[in-house]
Amino acid sequence: VTRIRGEIDDVTKGDYGHFMLKEIYEQSRVIQNTLNGRISAEHVLEESFGVKAKAIFDQITSVQIVACGTSHHAGLITKYWLESIAGIPCHVDIASDYRYRRIIVQPGTLFVTISQSGETADTLAALRYANELSYVASMAICNVATSSLVRESDFSLLTMAGREIGVASTKAFTTQLVALLLMTLVLGRRHGLTEEKESGYVHDLHKLPALVTDVLKQDTAIQQLSIQFADKHHALFLGRGPQYPVAKEGALKLKEISYIHAEAYPAGELKHGPLALVDDRMPVVAVAPNDELLGKLKGNLAEVSARGGKLFVFADESAGFDDEEEYQLIKLPAVPEVLAPILYTIPLQLLSYHVAILKGTDVDHPRNLAKSVTVE
Amino acid sequence: VTRIRGEIDDVTKGDYGHFMLKEIYEQSRVIQNTLNGRISAEHVLEESFGVKAKAIFDQITSVQIVACGTSHHAGLITKYWLESIAGIPCHVDIASDYRYRRIIVQPGTLFVTISQSGETADTLAALRYANELSYVASMAICNVATSSLVRESDFSLLTMAGREIGVASTKAFTTQLVALLLMTLVLGRRHGLTEEKESGYVHDLHKLPALVTDVLKQDTAIQQLSIQFADKHHALFLGRGPQYPVAKEGALKLKEISYIHAEAYPAGELKHGPLALVDDRMPVVAVAPNDELLGKLKGNLAEVSARGGKLFVFADESAGFDDEEEYQLIKLPAVPEVLAPILYTIPLQLLSYHVAILKGTDVDHPRNLAKSVTVE
Repeated sequence: VTRIRGEIDDVTKGDYGHFMLKEIYEQSRVIQNTLNGRISAEHVLEESFGVKAKAIFDQITSVQIVACGTSHHAGLITKYWLESIAGIPCHVDIASDYRYRRIIVQPGTLFVTISQSGETADTLAALRYANELSYVASMAICNVATSSLVRESDFSLLTMAGREIGVASTKAFTTQLVALLLMTLVLGRRHGLTEEKESGYVHDLHKLPALVTDVLKQDTAIQQLSIQFADKHHALFLGRGPQYPVAKEGALKLKEISYIHAEAYPAGELKHGPLALVDDRMPVVAVAPNDELLGKLKGNLAEVSARGGKLFVFADESAGFDDEEEYQLIKLPAVPEVLAPILYTIPLQLLSYHVAILKGTDVDHPRNLAKSVTVE
Repeated sequence: VTRIRGEIDDVTKGDYGHFMLKEIYEQSRVIQNTLNGRISAEHVLEESFGVKAKAIFDQITSVQIVACGTSHHAGLITKYWLESIAGIPCHVDIASDYRYRRIIVQPGTLFVTISQSGETADTLAALRYANELSYVASMAICNVATSSLVRESDFSLLTMAGREIGVASTKAFTTQLVALLLMTLVLGRRHGLTEEKESGYVHDLHKLPALVTDVLKQDTAIQQLSIQFADKHHALFLGRGPQYPVAKEGALKLKEISYIHAEAYPAGELKHGPLALVDDRMPVVAVAPNDELLGKLKGNLAEVSARGGKLFVFADESAGFDDEEEYQLIKLPAVPEVLAPILYTIPLQLLSYHVAILKGTDVDHPRNLAKSVTVE
């Protein structure tokens, strides 16, 4: 009965005006579903990766991730996690590029693909190419158990996002990140991540569904803020470190459903070009968790202000962004650093949704785009 | 006498209206200067890398490149060369990101920085960080022999671009690419690049200065084309494989000096989002040498046309872009594939220059930007 209930939930909008908004609001629940059975109170349950995984993970000394679009952004965030938490080098490529390149595989490398549908043409072609190369094994992070990607990979970790209908991916992305963080911890164990540290991260993961709910409480404030974007033609999204891919994902959402030309930039690169674009018609969005890069990011943002740029900052309430004249602020709760990329994505999803509503676009079916890109 | 003559040439505009245009036109000569003494008729002269280089190159099995802005784009192109020609894996990072990350160094890795001035703050900080890690050695690609970057690296290969005064880098970029291609060949020798293949590439390099002159002959046609950009607020630049960084560099030039919001995208990612932006007000620029990705690129461009996007294609004259109704074409001479990233950069430099002239911006000193970013 539960199963059928879930399926019905998945294909109706319920009280929401659009699938996208419904799917944004489902994130707390589907993240919980993606964690269920995969973590104990203190640890990641490695057996949840399947019977073949342990022997494979034991051999891994580097990771190659390949994906497209939003899934590619999940890969870019994972690179930071793998390097900082697991001490394992990770390289991330766009599937349409990877599949046509000469690839030199370093020994001990795990090949990881990420795709909501598991039918993304370029990602699937990249997997088939990689399967001919000397990777230790291939692993899929996927939302569809019966997909080609899952079938053709050595093993997989499913995201439990349920069916995603909005073309702009939301819950598939955040559950991908949860799955990839679990993979990071399991690999980290083999490279010096202590039990104590692992259990710290697992404690953080247990808090994640409730934190998602907390972040969603900013919806009304974000809706207010969105009014200032509805007449704009451009936007810059800035982040540093693992927040740069979050900025990329935020910019992509705005592109996809509101047709605003939003571009993300690593904040540290501003002075190498994009600062020339900044004037009072160019809104600049920044994601600012309270991490070690905060001071640097503030310096970058001061440059934007000094050039008349209009700043919209999504910041940790403890990050000291208090000058309401200089910034327009959305304050987010203090969150564990490791979870910040997941949690800071959500207000940017809401921003793009509300801007699209104001612009009157077809939110769930934006022009020119398909849900799954199953042809090249 | 020659030396002083050269110095005077470097600091006056001569017959050119701007340093940027003069520097674009100098590229044939300064590329020749960067090749002089470094290649024989058939081979790269390895001793030109300095006495320490040979023993270092012998140990190298992978390369890590770190740079900012335009120099970062040179790094991204080099990744393709190193992997396809030398069979050596290469990873490229933005300096402002690299310096604050935990880095896992794989054995046998050469650390390479790229900077015109050799004083770029983030790149220099990245070098200092890397010098504490377990790289085999550090190498600088730099235009200033007396710079901090050169002094603090184990060895360097100087670009012979002469003084670059325009804030938007042009000749520094193409000479960096020449130096990096020489490095690729010298490393390739140790990883299966045959003498015959090396001499093929060296023959191509000998042709490069004349090919630059050929490409510059399109100046008037590009000036004509630029009229269609002067009233635009956006542009998309598309490329595949090593032409994606070329597209990034083209978009950066347009941003820097004409303040048009130009963004580059790997053409294969179009369907994963940016296609939603395409309408008749969004010019789309594509770089299309006649390489193995041409068919794929044409497919991507057909998608753009079908959505009413206005296409401007810089294409090999033999690439079969003949439907003048669908595309506006700048035809470039047939060029060796390895040199295409260098040669296709040049028309995009000219495009940004002519658009900026029409817009009346301060070409050599664009707003908000400095020539060398010597602070964070």
